Amino acid sequence: MKFVRFGERENEKPGVLDADGTIRDLSGKIDDLAGDVLTDLDTLKGVDLAALPAVSGAPRLGPPVAGTGKFICIGLNYADHAAESGLEVPPEPVIFMKATSAICGPNDPIIVPRTSEKTDWEVELAVVIGKRAKYVSEDEAMAHVAGYAITNDVSERAFQAERAGQWTKGKSCDNFGQIGPWLVTPDEVADPQQLKMWLTVNGKTMQDGSTATMVYGVKFLVSYLSQFMTLHPGDVISTGTPPGVGLGMKPPQYLKPGDVVEVGIEGLGQQRQDVVADD
Amino acid sequence: MKFVRFGERENEKPGVLDADGTIRDLSGKIDDLAGDVLTDLDTLKGVDLAALPAVSGAPRLGPPVAGTGKFICIGLNYADHAAESGLEVPPEPVIFMKATSAICGPNDPIIVPRTSEKTDWEVELAVVIGKRAKYVSEDEAMAHVAGYAITNDVSERAFQAERAGQWTKGKSCDNFGQIGPWLVTPDEVADPQQLKMWLTVNGKTMQDGSTATMVYGVKFLVSYLSQFMTLHPGDVISTGTPPGVGLGMKPPQYLKPGDVVEVGIEGLGQQRQDVVADD
Repeated sequence: MKFVRFGERENEKPGVLDADGTIRDLSGKIDDLAGDVLTDLDTLKGVDLAALPAVSGAPRLGPPVAGTGKFICIGLNYADHAAESGLEVPPEPVIFMKATSAICGPNDPIIVPRTSEKTDWEVELAVVIGKRAKYVSEDEAMAHVAGYAITNDVSERAFQAERAGQWTKGKSCDNFGQIGPWLVTPDEVADPQQLKMWLTVNGKTMQDGSTATMVYGVKFLVSYLSQFMTLHPGDVISTGTPPGVGLGMKPPQYLKPGDVVEVGIEGLGQQRQDVVADD
Repeated sequence: MKFVRFGERENEKPGVLDADGTIRDLSGKIDDLAGDVLTDLDTLKGVDLAALPAVSGAPRLGPPVAGTGKFICIGLNYADHAAESGLEVPPEPVIFMKATSAICGPNDPIIVPRTSEKTDWEVELAVVIGKRAKYVSEDEAMAHVAGYAITNDVSERAFQAERAGQWTKGKSCDNFGQIGPWLVTPDEVADPQQLKMWLTVNGKTMQDGSTATMVYGVKFLVSYLSQFMTLHPGDVISTGTPPGVGLGMKPPQYLKPGDVVEVGIEGLGQQRQDVVADD
């Protein structure tokens, strides 16, 4: 199933796509795509979608998951991206956090912070946790996944690397975390390690990769993270980006107001973002 | 005023201390100490505390703030602590995130993770945001503060520094963020940069400092962070620790099950934690 959240920011309703791609309003069935609802998404499989209200027009989409307590990212998880960043592939996953306040809908604008000169893009496969996970093995890991989505892990490279240690500062600005459009359940993703992914800026392809070249895969990451902290329903793990970020260009290229970014992953839909100045 | 949250985990009720130190139940007046309630704590000043139900016994205390979206920490913010860690004072604040799932009550146990050998302590002054803050100046900063609390920024030093980059991994384990006992409003804290702070392990004083030696003060930090991301009501900023952590001992000394940690800051109460193994 492909779940969405639609409507104005902070007031989104849950929905699901029917076979025609029409959004059907789920708000009569569930409160939101959050918490325990994510643990039991399978129970929605029996719902007669044709009997749910169809949503007309093209409403704004929010992030397809609510109540995210942790927005965990994996750094340098594609060997080629590490190389373009001038860094080694780490001996075990590098993890860092983005602020959950950076989360927004898939087509919400990328806001360039006031003093930013190095706002960059990163298409990533996001894993949404569906079931509490602590000290789980790799064999058990996938039972804790509610589904997959696209993330644009927008990053300010100067804030990240030139403003005194730790990456959080360059990863957490408002609207630096577009998630969606859909939360796609695992039964519709044959192999999360075989998904094409791409990102364009003003129509030009900048990233053109595949989750096949991920160093630490989804199963490993869920198990690994659960050794350090409990993962809760709604937590999002953004699994790293393939080559082609602005920082890796020669010379580096960054986003400016007026640019348009489009982002896609095979089977997970696509995003479109206007780049705007912070007013 | 001194606010508390009391009761079982995830089901705490809001309360306030009266002049005798008795908890008065605020649940008839407010839903919780979260969100917009934190913006308008002043409106509770007129409440007749004697008319509120007194809470009997000694209930468990939870963190004195709910709905925390960001648990932001400042690294190396005391010159002496940087020195004991073998690191320089940074030219601007180092920020990192702890998982909000690490947050617990002030007297909840410190849980040593299964593979941990270097679980350490850090008494810190926490600032709780009361009002949305974005691009605020230092002059405006204090109007965005709901109050102060104690944090024990429990840290696993091997996870933090020996397990591939970024500190989050060693800062985010379950029960690695005791907050409280009280949320103390700014009118009761004459000067947040003149507070004595201390921490003992099994009765022996390990940390004995003052917020007077903080490098980047509260006012600066709120303004600084708001340049990078919007701060929301309930966000917690833990402002760094003075010297005396286990990592800085010669030889280093870490926590083991059976130890007892007590933590205090002048005017903000004190915490007591049993150290336990993760089962």
